[in-house]
Amino acid sequence: MKETLYIIKVGGNIIDDERKLSAFLADFAALPGRKILVHGGGKLATRMADQLNIPQQMVDGRRITDEETLRIVTMVYAGYINKSIIAYLQANDCPSIGISGADGDAIRSHRRIKGEIDYGFVGDVDAVNADLISNWLEQGLALVVAPITHDGKGQLLNTNADTIAQELASSLSERYLTILTYSFEKNGVLIDIEDELSVIPLITPSSYAQLKEEGRIFAGMIPKLDNAFRALASGVERVIIGKGEDLYQLLAGKKGTTINLNK
Amino acid sequence: MKETLYIIKVGGNIIDDERKLSAFLADFAALPGRKILVHGGGKLATRMADQLNIPQQMVDGRRITDEETLRIVTMVYAGYINKSIIAYLQANDCPSIGISGADGDAIRSHRRIKGEIDYGFVGDVDAVNADLISNWLEQGLALVVAPITHDGKGQLLNTNADTIAQELASSLSERYLTILTYSFEKNGVLIDIEDELSVIPLITPSSYAQLKEEGRIFAGMIPKLDNAFRALASGVERVIIGKGEDLYQLLAGKKGTTINLNK
Repeated sequence: MKETLYIIKVGGNIIDDERKLSAFLADFAALPGRKILVHGGGKLATRMADQLNIPQQMVDGRRITDEETLRIVTMVYAGYINKSIIAYLQANDCPSIGISGADGDAIRSHRRIKGEIDYGFVGDVDAVNADLISNWLEQGLALVVAPITHDGKGQLLNTNADTIAQELASSLSERYLTILTYSFEKNGVLIDIEDELSVIPLITPSSYAQLKEEGRIFAGMIPKLDNAFRALASGVERVIIGKGEDLYQLLAGKKGTTINLNK
Repeated sequence: MKETLYIIKVGGNIIDDERKLSAFLADFAALPGRKILVHGGGKLATRMADQLNIPQQMVDGRRITDEETLRIVTMVYAGYINKSIIAYLQANDCPSIGISGADGDAIRSHRRIKGEIDYGFVGDVDAVNADLISNWLEQGLALVVAPITHDGKGQLLNTNADTIAQELASSLSERYLTILTYSFEKNGVLIDIEDELSVIPLITPSSYAQLKEEGRIFAGMIPKLDNAFRALASGVERVIIGKGEDLYQLLAGKKGTTINLNK
């Protein structure tokens, strides 16, 4: 029987709130077994860019990662946030290492092919080094992954943390019974974006198709849900979307939205 | 017979010079066998602090690491510099991971006991996790170590890179035939600080005592040499001090200063 692996993406709203982050990390530290935390960046990178007078270009609502911005996100995500999390976890009896995708060639990507928009130094994931990662997990180490990857030719690339979590889950699902959790600021996938009580407890491929057809899924959720179904299609056991503060209830299926193939 | 382990400290003058750094890293990447690179910070952290208007307090010529400064050095050393080095090494067929002392509890320290001066968040090393580090080395990974450690209670600490290199060498010398190299901007330990040709090729405990007595050692070299003898006393095979550009000649004993116990 496969061992369980928890892969948990923690969003910016928790990263930005010291009290919430400590509580979340205490929960993560206490979670037994194999586990990977993927963190986003929060507002610190934007604040740093402002303070350093590096103008942030937005195109179609997406940030362009120029060379200066790449330097800042590498510093903030892989440096300050990642190492602060590790120091906290070690103090909470959770042996752990913090990595970027460059470390051990853990996550290799290519610079996003320029279509109409040049996003700059942004990577789309090509490969996950599952041997290396499972080796670390089997040594009893929790992994904390910053959303920075590399192209194998010396270039670091800014990479979406949701996608990294999905790619890790997909690549490791052959070896582990993999549970992927996207934690964010809402209670789950909501029918009414204004009503935190309108959580959809279960989404399956057929209900997803129907919800989309009826226009009842908030547009901002669609990339997360598409990631979720991509993970399930490649063998991930279950995907959960919900509030970071409710980690154990999410994993127990008592809160949040569970997405599965209706097995 | 013990395997050889090279531990190489690379100084700020190379870190600050993109061309020199690439050449140095190409040499490091090609070095066969087990190896660890310890890097300092260079001028980027100071420049960042200036740009962010964080005043740098100096007491007795030493920088005080307040909370804001700690954040900057963690970002710059463990984030930008460390990950840029790793991306370069991976592209040069050198499987490697970049760590701080918090990762895997690799290097634990305590905040420097306040004497007359409070240096702030500065750590003195207590323990090296030699099991974990040798495990990574035996997996064929080169380690790249940023000069940031932790106290095991959640606090990151700014730590002298020369000392980290010495502590790693001392702790690993039981398992490996350990060669510790301090690379910096000069040709080696010089008799005349103005004359790059005045390298002392060999220093032993007795010649060191004599050189110090005669006042012929430049004061700035004394901490490096004291570190070197501390390493030798705990079983390190040989310490080499010289120019980063000459890595292979240093290791071959053809350039630089070799420090040993005159075995």
